[in-house]
Amino acid sequence: MESIKRTRIADILHNWQSIGIGNTVNLKGWVRTKRGNKNVAFIALNDGSIIHSIQIVVELAGFDEGSMKLITTGSCISVNGTLVESPGQGQAVEIQAKEIEVYGTADPETYPLQKKGHTLEFLREIAHLRPRTNTFGAVLRMRHAMAYAIHKYFNDNGFYYLHTPIITGSDAEGAGAMFRVTTLDAKNPPLTGTGEVDYSLDFFGKATNLTVSGQLEGELGALALSNIYTFGPTFRAENSNTPRHLAEFWMIEPEMAFYDINDNMDLAEDFLKYLVRYALEHCMDDLEFLNKMYDNELIDRLKFVVENDFQRLTYTEAIDILKASGQKFEFPVDWGTDLQSEHERYLVEKHFQRPVILTDYPSHIKAFYMKQNDDGKTVRAMDVLFPRIGEIIGGSQREEVLEKLIQRCREMHIPEKDIWWYLDTRRFGTAPHAGFGLGFERMMLFVTGMANIRDVIPFPRTPQNAEF
Amino acid sequence: MESIKRTRIADILHNWQSIGIGNTVNLKGWVRTKRGNKNVAFIALNDGSIIHSIQIVVELAGFDEGSMKLITTGSCISVNGTLVESPGQGQAVEIQAKEIEVYGTADPETYPLQKKGHTLEFLREIAHLRPRTNTFGAVLRMRHAMAYAIHKYFNDNGFYYLHTPIITGSDAEGAGAMFRVTTLDAKNPPLTGTGEVDYSLDFFGKATNLTVSGQLEGELGALALSNIYTFGPTFRAENSNTPRHLAEFWMIEPEMAFYDINDNMDLAEDFLKYLVRYALEHCMDDLEFLNKMYDNELIDRLKFVVENDFQRLTYTEAIDILKASGQKFEFPVDWGTDLQSEHERYLVEKHFQRPVILTDYPSHIKAFYMKQNDDGKTVRAMDVLFPRIGEIIGGSQREEVLEKLIQRCREMHIPEKDIWWYLDTRRFGTAPHAGFGLGFERMMLFVTGMANIRDVIPFPRTPQNAEF
Repeated sequence: MESIKRTRIADILHNWQSIGIGNTVNLKGWVRTKRGNKNVAFIALNDGSIIHSIQIVVELAGFDEGSMKLITTGSCISVNGTLVESPGQGQAVEIQAKEIEVYGTADPETYPLQKKGHTLEFLREIAHLRPRTNTFGAVLRMRHAMAYAIHKYFNDNGFYYLHTPIITGSDAEGAGAMFRVTTLDAKNPPLTGTGEVDYSLDFFGKATNLTVSGQLEGELGALALSNIYTFGPTFRAENSNTPRHLAEFWMIEPEMAFYDINDNMDLAEDFLKYLVRYALEHCMDDLEFLNKMYDNELIDRLKFVVENDFQRLTYTEAIDILKASGQKFEFPVDWGTDLQSEHERYLVEKHFQRPVILTDYPSHIKAFYMKQNDDGKTVRAMDVLFPRIGEIIGGSQREEVLEKLIQRCREMHIPEKDIWWYLDTRRFGTAPHAGFGLGFERMMLFVTGMANIRDVIPFPRTPQNAEF
Repeated sequence: MESIKRTRIADILHNWQSIGIGNTVNLKGWVRTKRGNKNVAFIALNDGSIIHSIQIVVELAGFDEGSMKLITTGSCISVNGTLVESPGQGQAVEIQAKEIEVYGTADPETYPLQKKGHTLEFLREIAHLRPRTNTFGAVLRMRHAMAYAIHKYFNDNGFYYLHTPIITGSDAEGAGAMFRVTTLDAKNPPLTGTGEVDYSLDFFGKATNLTVSGQLEGELGALALSNIYTFGPTFRAENSNTPRHLAEFWMIEPEMAFYDINDNMDLAEDFLKYLVRYALEHCMDDLEFLNKMYDNELIDRLKFVVENDFQRLTYTEAIDILKASGQKFEFPVDWGTDLQSEHERYLVEKHFQRPVILTDYPSHIKAFYMKQNDDGKTVRAMDVLFPRIGEIIGGSQREEVLEKLIQRCREMHIPEKDIWWYLDTRRFGTAPHAGFGLGFERMMLFVTGMANIRDVIPFPRTPQNAEF
């Protein structure tokens, strides 16, 4: 077969006018469907570069019958052909095949991704193949677009990307149950004289875990470089089998010296709108597919978020609204209790009908590092609540006064010896600062309209499941 | 103090002409030094946005003596002042202070980062504070720039970022010793009837480890989306205390459907040159500092790499050159042995005096997934060797023929049941493809001129060390 440089199908469909009708191109990809009659075959070819397949028209007279039989759904082929205008509807151009090479066939008896639709549950069991479907192609391309937009936003705004550690000897953040990381003999661990596991003999000379948050280390960076962000995997060893929890997920945590809680809210709102706008500007092909197949309010919802201010109010004001709402909630509402998903969704979806930023939560339901308000009972926390998702961002201004921070550590039984390094930032050149965390998969749920968090990450890790 | 929107010192120094001499600005940052006499103080202020500090001139008559005493090396201040041209050398502008607020002092008796220079070894012990030094400010800003350049390069070239799993139940890649991830009771693990640890009761229902490579999962992505890349943490539980090894490091692994080994080499060379060019174009302030302080051939070396072709040759040709070299090597050279660092450096630094790409290694020293050549004894591997670094990239064309791949698995005792999902990609619509891995910290060593890998990652993890 003549060697011609491959063109991506995305480039053909977007730039066919400059490529030129009548010219010969090479395409490579996977066959989604083949139909036709004894004279002509129509192949829908997809290479993952775009959600659309391109139609390959094969006048069978010039082609080897044996090879054509190998071209089944799921097979991989290389096609030299002429770019022609398509007489059919729904496509501007198609390819008149001149030569075809079959790289690999796919046996219709055993290939699991036949033409018929598949449930998302079934596709999770074949997560190694599901990127070849329209749905997961769309989700994974959007996941790339959102990750890139995150890096671009922070780069363009003077933030530095900081790689905080994945393996940590610290569990001060207290955000959740942790996975142990070890090289000790699992069956017969070395013991100390008092019969406890002797972690001094473990790889790092002490007990270590997978990080639940890069925030504390992020603060070290911000208190030197001013504005940093993290974007890395985080872990929770919680036995939560829900559509909203993963044991391994990705988190973005910006941290900014000299920001107060208002600056923090402004950044969070601007950042989220930037990401949604980026999706609308760069992913419309995929969004239209997802809007049609999974959530027909998706695009409207994304546009609404970009175009409208988020509602900002205090936790205390929110409690008053919930109490006066007349709604029957499963969990009763009272000042001092943590808000449940049903409360957050009432505020966002019913009362304000827009994203909401709640601030100034009771200190006893928030972490030790949040800046204490003068009222003695609340802290400068801020949570951003989104429609369908609930909490998408959690953040706060941080306590920068050493004595107040130490006092909180004592009240919450966090040993100073475990976080001497964190306290040092308040001991030496302390500064007002703030930050927040965005769960990447929660954001992905929002921008894709998918309902289950297992369907917005390539290889989900959940209790009893670490396949592939 | 009057509230004025803060300007980053980088913006002052780069854009002072558009900000305008005589205008009032607000700066916030950390004091590097303070000197002067009883009438005037000169403060070098740094906010991490750029390596340069800006000089703050304080006519002491108008300022509170007690506050001025708190302004020590390491303290954090906010300054309102007038942007003026500097009479001194080495700086275009300085700030005539009008008001100063001290956010936090730093006790000269206990603050570890006093004016005097510190060894890199000492700074590793205070990794929580070392981002405040010129050296680590420069390294961390360059680390950001390189990470961003990586995402930008792939995004602009139609690659999709794929998050491969960190926790994995697969250890087929065989790239190194692994860390176990577990929630089982460390002291009294549950046992099976035969007395072995019962991993079916562990969090994921089986034994799991930290990934050593995202490649196998990356191939799943490439064989659906055409071009993908990973950029994430990887782990090796090897007891290697060297300046070139970390237990936790970041790796970039692009994987491309329809690429052969030549396409793979072209991509690797173009990619590496892009990154080095990006550093030269975006990080010259930091490069000039590192060139002056650590490696006075650094900038010349970077320019050389950008401007010259990499030398490409086969492993067999390299062995012939080494044997004919007349050099005395610690490890003898013979066809079939793996190349040692001394051999790689001889080829790169002495013989060719440029980056080298070696291809077609003996199959028995390479991984099972590499494409077998027709000679029956070599595989389509490619390693990129860099001056000072040795191997910076390792990659290959992948074996796409199912039967050959299964045969190699058997020879290398890799159970098919462990990688059925990987084999499925060759079973259904297989395609020629290739990819490589770049160790991010090796690249950081190259572009910064630093000598120890612990100094190019914010929080290094090595045997006996997981601080912060």
